[in-house]
Amino acid sequence: MSPEPAFETVCLVGIGHICSSLALALRRQGLARRLVTFEIDPEARRVAVEMGLVDLASADPAEVIPGADLVVVGVPVGAMKSVGQTIAPHLTPGAIVTDTGSVKQAVVRDLGPSIPAGVHFIPGHPIAGTEFSGPASATEGLFVGRWQILTPLPGTDPAALDRLAALWTAIGSNVEVMEPRHHDRVLAITSHLPHLIAYTIVGTASDLEGHLQHEVIKFSASGFRDFTRIAASDPVMWRDIFLNNREAVLEVIQRFTEDLTALQRAIRWGEGEILQQKFTETRAIRRAIIDARQA
Amino acid sequence: MSPEPAFETVCLVGIGHICSSLALALRRQGLARRLVTFEIDPEARRVAVEMGLVDLASADPAEVIPGADLVVVGVPVGAMKSVGQTIAPHLTPGAIVTDTGSVKQAVVRDLGPSIPAGVHFIPGHPIAGTEFSGPASATEGLFVGRWQILTPLPGTDPAALDRLAALWTAIGSNVEVMEPRHHDRVLAITSHLPHLIAYTIVGTASDLEGHLQHEVIKFSASGFRDFTRIAASDPVMWRDIFLNNREAVLEVIQRFTEDLTALQRAIRWGEGEILQQKFTETRAIRRAIIDARQA
Repeated sequence: MSPEPAFETVCLVGIGHICSSLALALRRQGLARRLVTFEIDPEARRVAVEMGLVDLASADPAEVIPGADLVVVGVPVGAMKSVGQTIAPHLTPGAIVTDTGSVKQAVVRDLGPSIPAGVHFIPGHPIAGTEFSGPASATEGLFVGRWQILTPLPGTDPAALDRLAALWTAIGSNVEVMEPRHHDRVLAITSHLPHLIAYTIVGTASDLEGHLQHEVIKFSASGFRDFTRIAASDPVMWRDIFLNNREAVLEVIQRFTEDLTALQRAIRWGEGEILQQKFTETRAIRRAIIDARQA
Repeated sequence: MSPEPAFETVCLVGIGHICSSLALALRRQGLARRLVTFEIDPEARRVAVEMGLVDLASADPAEVIPGADLVVVGVPVGAMKSVGQTIAPHLTPGAIVTDTGSVKQAVVRDLGPSIPAGVHFIPGHPIAGTEFSGPASATEGLFVGRWQILTPLPGTDPAALDRLAALWTAIGSNVEVMEPRHHDRVLAITSHLPHLIAYTIVGTASDLEGHLQHEVIKFSASGFRDFTRIAASDPVMWRDIFLNNREAVLEVIQRFTEDLTALQRAIRWGEGEILQQKFTETRAIRRAIIDARQA
């Protein structure tokens, strides 16, 4: 059984970890007749072609954007505006443009205005990824069982939305539709704050005196190493996330700091009951995540 | 080849996650002729015997402590003092008493004074474990390739120290000897702070309004879930760790808070270069941990 490909030509704008993993998934499911990438880094183009992720890689948008009926913009959030302006003149009427950015209000603000009438703009965010970067880190099955959030704007063509949602469903994702603003608030808690905390604690350790730092690495299995994985994520991508979801991130840092201060005070004053109660409550959240099969 | 067991009778005081995993390892390597446990929880005693972890489980120290040439105290740090007083009258001259507590100065302070002359007291801490508790969570190979820290006091019999170190080496651990005070400072950074931060962030999420909390669980794969695993660790064990390593923990919380405040300020003022630089530095630590084969 070989169904018609969902799209004729899919153009991946930037072939990093997410888009290269998407290319693998689309190939595997036969969902694109042709896969191309607009990528300015020559090394990434070379790897993408060598790995067979795409049929054509080009630094010239005129070579790869025209004729694409799906364009997936997978660049750091801070690059969305200029990339949008670069690709916009080459977009084909009727095409769908989506993205993989971890912040959605900023993408609507920065990428949205460039998209011409007649092209469907449907922002998206796959809740998947690892600490690795670049096309060589393409991961088979990265999206299977994970959420794909779509944040369509008012007036979005329902048929285009269905078509994009069906693509993500076909590669194993669960699709959820929500408002950009709500997305940014939820992700500030589930993703942006955890990454900031991980970067902070690993940074605190890296500022230690030499001999102590050596021991932190040696004995990292006691908890610390769990943080170092996410603190190894792409620095530019994460810089842009924090700069572009500032309001929501600052709000959750504030909540976190209040809660940390309360525990710090309980430790200082020897208030064991407060500590034990708090540590017991958090077990329930872990159980809920295991039950939701996201562990 | 069946070498002589390293010890005649090993008594595990408290048969939780660490001591039950130790029992598995000792059985596997034939390092104890007889394994017994002093455990006050009837359910834990039942499980330990049913799983074949020990030959005898008793709530009466007079039944299991006398004749043991190795006693491993694996109870929460806050219980060390009273457990020490309970087992002390039953200890056999020449026996080695060690422990598995995550804090060492407090164990020296609380357990040390009970140990009679003629019994070797050598505090220890295996840098291993999971978020699970109780004897049913006994894990095969838990100590393989992990560090076992021993913090002997001045005047410790070198032969007893060698014998205990050889036991840990035989089950696959790498043994490191250090001062109790230094241990507590290193672990405050590598273990205690990460656990406190994980408990805090999971607590911050569990205080959210109901619908938002549901979404935090749903989209936890974006970073949050990495924290929930260690925030599911045993509440009493961790309460005791924070109360008994207060000074070192408060010092590292202070460093962490300063660093978080600096990043918070950079986000507020849109200082992208500071963020990017900090996020780049932390990648080196991850690489060092991978190189040290502790990832």
